[in-house]
Amino acid sequence: MYIPKFSVILSNVGACCDRYLSSGYRNPLTIDEMFEKVAAIKNVQGVELIANWNISPKNVVQIRENLKNTGLMLVSIIPDHFGQQKWGCGAFASRNPEIRREAAKHTKEMMDIAGDFHCEVISLWPGQDGYDYFFQSDYMAEREWFEEGVKECCNYRKDVRISIEYKMKEPRCRSLPSNVYSVLLMTKEINEENCGVTIDYGHSLVAYENPAESVAVLKKYGDKLFHMHMNDNYGFWDDDMIVGTVHTIPFIELFYWLKKTEYKGWISTDQYPYREDGQKAVRESIEWMLTLNRIANKMDSKEVENIFRTGDATEASKMLRKYMFA
Amino acid sequence: MYIPKFSVILSNVGACCDRYLSSGYRNPLTIDEMFEKVAAIKNVQGVELIANWNISPKNVVQIRENLKNTGLMLVSIIPDHFGQQKWGCGAFASRNPEIRREAAKHTKEMMDIAGDFHCEVISLWPGQDGYDYFFQSDYMAEREWFEEGVKECCNYRKDVRISIEYKMKEPRCRSLPSNVYSVLLMTKEINEENCGVTIDYGHSLVAYENPAESVAVLKKYGDKLFHMHMNDNYGFWDDDMIVGTVHTIPFIELFYWLKKTEYKGWISTDQYPYREDGQKAVRESIEWMLTLNRIANKMDSKEVENIFRTGDATEASKMLRKYMFA
Amino acid sequence: MYIPKFSVILSNVGACCDRYLSSGYRNPLTIDEMFEKVAAIKNVQGVELIANWNISPKNVVQIRENLKNTGLMLVSIIPDHFGQQKWGCGAFASRNPEIRREAAKHTKEMMDIAGDFHCEVISLWPGQDGYDYFFQSDYMAEREWFEEGVKECCNYRKDVRISIEYKMKEPRCRSLPSNVYSVLLMTKEINEENCGVTIDYGHSLVAYENPAESVAVLKKYGDKLFHMHMNDNYGFWDDDMIVGTVHTIPFIELFYWLKKTEYKGWISTDQYPYREDGQKAVRESIEWMLTLNRIANKMDSKEVENIFRTGDATEASKMLRKYMFA
Amino acid sequence: MYIPKFSVILSNVGACCDRYLSSGYRNPLTIDEMFEKVAAIKNVQGVELIANWNISPKNVVQIRENLKNTGLMLVSIIPDHFGQQKWGCGAFASRNPEIRREAAKHTKEMMDIAGDFHCEVISLWPGQDGYDYFFQSDYMAEREWFEEGVKECCNYRKDVRISIEYKMKEPRCRSLPSNVYSVLLMTKEINEENCGVTIDYGHSLVAYENPAESVAVLKKYGDKLFHMHMNDNYGFWDDDMIVGTVHTIPFIELFYWLKKTEYKGWISTDQYPYREDGQKAVRESIEWMLTLNRIANKMDSKEVENIFRTGDATEASKMLRKYMFA
Repeated sequence: MYIPKFSVILSNVGACCDRYLSSGYRNPLTIDEMFEKVAAIKNVQGVELIANWNISPKNVVQIRENLKNTGLMLVSIIPDHFGQQKWGCGAFASRNPEIRREAAKHTKEMMDIAGDFHCEVISLWPGQDGYDYFFQSDYMAEREWFEEGVKECCNYRKDVRISIEYKMKEPRCRSLPSNVYSVLLMTKEINEENCGVTIDYGHSLVAYENPAESVAVLKKYGDKLFHMHMNDNYGFWDDDMIVGTVHTIPFIELFYWLKKTEYKGWISTDQYPYREDGQKAVRESIEWMLTLNRIANKMDSKEVENIFRTGDATEASKMLRKYMFA
Repeated sequence: MYIPKFSVILSNVGACCDRYLSSGYRNPLTIDEMFEKVAAIKNVQGVELIANWNISPKNVVQIRENLKNTGLMLVSIIPDHFGQQKWGCGAFASRNPEIRREAAKHTKEMMDIAGDFHCEVISLWPGQDGYDYFFQSDYMAEREWFEEGVKECCNYRKDVRISIEYKMKEPRCRSLPSNVYSVLLMTKEINEENCGVTIDYGHSLVAYENPAESVAVLKKYGDKLFHMHMNDNYGFWDDDMIVGTVHTIPFIELFYWLKKTEYKGWISTDQYPYREDGQKAVRESIEWMLTLNRIANKMDSKEVENIFRTGDATEASKMLRKYMFA
Repeated sequence: MYIPKFSVILSNVGACCDRYLSSGYRNPLTIDEMFEKVAAIKNVQGVELIANWNISPKNVVQIRENLKNTGLMLVSIIPDHFGQQKWGCGAFASRNPEIRREAAKHTKEMMDIAGDFHCEVISLWPGQDGYDYFFQSDYMAEREWFEEGVKECCNYRKDVRISIEYKMKEPRCRSLPSNVYSVLLMTKEINEENCGVTIDYGHSLVAYENPAESVAVLKKYGDKLFHMHMNDNYGFWDDDMIVGTVHTIPFIELFYWLKKTEYKGWISTDQYPYREDGQKAVRESIEWMLTLNRIANKMDSKEVENIFRTGDATEASKMLRKYMFA
Repeated sequence: MYIPKFSVILSNVGACCDRYLSSGYRNPLTIDEMFEKVAAIKNVQGVELIANWNISPKNVVQIRENLKNTGLMLVSIIPDHFGQQKWGCGAFASRNPEIRREAAKHTKEMMDIAGDFHCEVISLWPGQDGYDYFFQSDYMAEREWFEEGVKECCNYRKDVRISIEYKMKEPRCRSLPSNVYSVLLMTKEINEENCGVTIDYGHSLVAYENPAESVAVLKKYGDKLFHMHMNDNYGFWDDDMIVGTVHTIPFIELFYWLKKTEYKGWISTDQYPYREDGQKAVRESIEWMLTLNRIANKMDSKEVENIFRTGDATEASKMLRKYMFA
């Protein structure tokens, strides 16, 4: 039986904005308010924080207070490599060596804060790395810079793991690294034990991956799944919707493979509830995950593995209907 | 309560081929064998036939025999506008007026056969109409030819309905008509009561439509849903998979809207079980549709309509989980 | 020969933001600064303004001053139906009749301002109309509300044209109206002479349209192309890039059809130069359009139409190479 | 200056079929006829053969004759792992160890034939490897089998290179390996010097890759680009169209990077001219490639590399327009 450990990216219960309504679809909440909202969601034990948006060297005392008051664990920090003008053209893969140094420096700072909080994972999302236009970039150099910078951080302290989150696009038209294979190549090149991968369910879909397969691939090539971000979308864009509102079966398969590969890490929601109450939207995601994981847990492994052995899709179909609806 | 009438496109239980394995992934079956296989699938009452592949003026006696023996109704004929060299560059929208005449002539022949069998629907799939290359076509002329030809057929006999099946691409890179709105514009231009639309579930997905919305749109603009083809896919291509093996919730919403709009027509499977036993694959589709329609039927209309009134996605999410899994 | 009239959406030369960097990739410019920057771009004669962002009842005097100083014409106003919290769940298609009334009221205000400036076009972009989740919306009702509201505005004053800009998605996961056929259906239902369509090049691509074909379709069904927005993208998302930096041939075909259909309206750039100097990015778009239109103008119509008559793709290919590179 | 070596996949000048018109859009040609047609295309020096379709142990004498008569070189053989019923559910990644052995055996046979012809490359396209349905496959096992089988072949004889061609989908809904990173991971695992990668331009596009970047990536991670297949498409499906008829700039960037990375291999056309004369369609591809490579060759490397250093997209845009159209 697989028992997931659920956490929530703090901002998920707050307000969202986009390029058309940059002041936000709802009024902003304070850090304290967001902590309270997360703590009130059943089955959630952890929280994930975004640097600068949620946590910085200046508010660690407040965060410690909030964690104590709510009983939530800090499960991961996402360094800010995307939310300031200086990162606009990239961070670890920036052409500017100064910016690259800053990217590493900030990451190390966050590693130290993480260490202080006994938080094991830095989920690194290089949102601004990549490019937009043809003939704009030296693709070889940028990957090299990226790998060098992350390696340096991995070596900075070995008790904190760096988990790289891949994404195909947005905010860059062509982001770096783009898919599970691309990031795995990088981790092999970086070649540090504390360097692994975050699967964001929606990013995986946009790359036309089947997330269950991505879990399997990370297992096969070095047991590199360190962290998970959950949401849902229509397959073409990172819509960051409530988990389970678009897809059903692929989530069941995902939970089956998390069990099969003995995933031990956290599962954070990562949503943008532009027009929904954030807390309700996260609660729905948790409830869907519990439901879909329950179905995966009900499945008889021998029965499943037997279908793998025959590859009979009609048997897989029948089995799914049975476990889902019988 | 909505009680669907299920039918099967005869070839669905036979062998499939593609451009790499043109001789077929399995050995071909005879017409008689395919009829038997369809008849043995529970809850199927009708059969849909493809001209030349399944039916032609030459084998109507055999077909009549098969219908009698199996008790299946002939619910629709698909004229052959795609399976011979002469249609290679289009049928109703061909540049060649001779071919356009042939397209109409063949359609009328099939209308007559349909009439003889008390079959009400010609499901017209203009697979070869459209284009591949930039600067290859006069887009205005081709739409005009298409509309003229179909109108002529609609006028040929009013007791048979012509239901146009739209598709975005394949076998042409850019097919005509491409989506539910495009075909509706055409039916408005054609302006005949017996001219309507076939929704193929997979075609609708490839056009980034939500099939439930497509049903609503056809209702709003003239009650034009005449026929349905069912299958499933990953959203990018017409994979023609078993219904319900990729998507779940959108099928439930589709059945809800078929009920809400009081759809009276047939629902045919339209699959390409390349590597599956065709009969088993169709049976799975029928079982999934029964299951998913049962969920839609369970739903309290007042509850659903109330969510429509508020637009609260978290309530929609909660409601779906309740009806699906509680 | 087709001689395009170029205009620029004022904000194109300013700073852009997105959901990760909501304060903007560059520092904001004033209205005056942006006018100056637009005026300095060769071959630009007009400017298009976004309500609230650029123009409001409060700053018409300043705008009049800017127009006078720069010699630019005001070619279109885009009402604000997307940039404030009140529009978050829709404007003309909002469930809330109060909001729908506000949407119409604001539109009429902008029509009056347009009238005062002898500006003929309101380019209506219903960015927040549509939906995100399954089972969230009554698709028939929302289209109806939308059509009613726009019709009311069209009737408000006949000397200003309302040009509806379609888009498949963003900011809604599923936007209304989604493609050129969908919006044409709406204009037919609205049935007012001053109601037409804006093609945004990038929106057209995201709907897997060929923009040249969309121009042809709008000609065929009532000569409904009222306005154009230009940019470029990779085909999957509204990247709003510099015109001509991704695609080449389809732009040439577009200009060919603008000539063939005798388009008389304006062509505005509509870009989001997140990481570029806005003025330079717009200048590049204008230069590309001049270059690509020059190629289209060089083409011998008889030669082109002859290829249409044969449909020979290899001849189209050869012809294109000749006009582009010989 | 980069001087490409062009070859043609023999079947490109013959007839094509698809799942709707399995007997072919045109009448089939003989091997001899196809050789003649290829030989008559200017600037083509090589031919690539598909096992069973074009070459088998039975017709090596005829092939030798054809090569002699035409003066064409045999540049690559594509083993048949897709065109017979036995491969329907996979070859190297088949669940059936018997089939896996056959896949290796057939590959070795083709390596021997290649060796006899002094042909250096086996372009391995595992078209039937992968899966269609959720819960159908053990993703870890199948990758393992695939890698084992290919490694065994690589060891069979070191003087022939095995170049794996990746593709995201078709004929499987989810193919193995899917993109340039996935295949690179495999070659790293296989870890044989004579194991590398074929880029098919269209496959690369369907994976939302920029082919120029894929070339760079293969250079960076071990200089693994062994072979190229060229065609064009609309970005969503392997349309196998004439090179240069959809895209322009990305081809120029591709040729720039082939020069920059000093690619020494062959460039084969790989098209499906369903409705075109095959020979004319291939000739067009060659002419486009010459034209687009000429533009790439004109480019001043210092100028290009300087743009890479600044990343200024407006400068890249201006430079492209200059080299393309000034």
